[in-house]
Amino acid sequence: MFVVCLDLEGVLVPEIWINVAEKTGIKELRLTTRDIPDYDVLMKGRIEILKQHNLTLKDIQDVIATMKPLDGAKEFMTELRSLTQAVILSDTFDQFAKPLMKQLNWPTIFCNTLTVDDSNMITGYKLRQKDGKKHAVEGFHSMNLKVFASGDSYNDLSMIKEADGGMLFCPPQKIIDENPQIKVAHDYDDLLCGIKTLLKTI
Amino acid sequence: MFVVCLDLEGVLVPEIWINVAEKTGIKELRLTTRDIPDYDVLMKGRIEILKQHNLTLKDIQDVIATMKPLDGAKEFMTELRSLTQAVILSDTFDQFAKPLMKQLNWPTIFCNTLTVDDSNMITGYKLRQKDGKKHAVEGFHSMNLKVFASGDSYNDLSMIKEADGGMLFCPPQKIIDENPQIKVAHDYDDLLCGIKTLLKTI
Repeated sequence: MFVVCLDLEGVLVPEIWINVAEKTGIKELRLTTRDIPDYDVLMKGRIEILKQHNLTLKDIQDVIATMKPLDGAKEFMTELRSLTQAVILSDTFDQFAKPLMKQLNWPTIFCNTLTVDDSNMITGYKLRQKDGKKHAVEGFHSMNLKVFASGDSYNDLSMIKEADGGMLFCPPQKIIDENPQIKVAHDYDDLLCGIKTLLKTI
Repeated sequence: MFVVCLDLEGVLVPEIWINVAEKTGIKELRLTTRDIPDYDVLMKGRIEILKQHNLTLKDIQDVIATMKPLDGAKEFMTELRSLTQAVILSDTFDQFAKPLMKQLNWPTIFCNTLTVDDSNMITGYKLRQKDGKKHAVEGFHSMNLKVFASGDSYNDLSMIKEADGGMLFCPPQKIIDENPQIKVAHDYDDLLCGIKTLLKTI
């Protein structure tokens, strides 16, 4: 059997923090793992900025509720799930993902969890595990599943390298240049083509 | 994070082989793991019976195409997937599951695969792995996920025992009597209640 592991932001939905930055006008919230590869440094910075601006979890959820999956993402997921199994592996949070997962017809997602205080301020986050995307691929391998992985960013590289096959999806040129051995999908057709090619070899 | 592992037949959809037995009039195909706990013995017997009656994979797929999920199963899955993550762990086959998964809005399922010859006769099956349901729970644990498991039959017991919480779902009285330590859900409300109770402890 076969499972496709997909990154969420940049692959199926827009970058959540960039949307929050735009709606709130706070430029520092635009930074992502594309800019700061160390996720813990990035997240602690984000939480500190939210605190300085008195932004609650509810404020951010209100922004996310106005977001839509990327053009074609819903159709891509429907076709993929009729073809094989898919699990989204993301560094986002339960509390952020839900309204977007609903729009994608509730695909399975493994991600992280925010901790929130009584006044609805975000105080921290619980990482599912360090390098969780790579460990998820290892876990699927332990279930004797073949894995295809795809994502757009630094935090997807270990997952793609651990998988039996994979592609970068619309990544920045810098990541392409640094990882010439990984194929690149420029749209969902490319990605489906790559997945079908690996499926045929099993 | 949290994942609910569910058996398929007897929990979300009717027993596939029993439906095939009824439509074809071949009584021996009614036997399930409830009757013969050794799955390999059961499956080799089924394949031999199909051969004797000249029944192809297509014949069985035609029967499955007329089946519906159990009453309330679709609504249960929608509520469950809005609440937390769910993965179906089944001893059925890719080729059998697809029309039923479509009706349930494509939940993630890990199961087995049939091998078929050029004349569309079933020649054997590829088990994902031996005791695959238990190993899947172990795999999810390796991803630092808490697991709730539920099923109705002998082949679900090791999965339920390995999980952090679980319930038998409408099992035969014999399995209840033999496993007095495992709670029993008599309907989807019972099952959701058990899942929510474990979710609160995390």
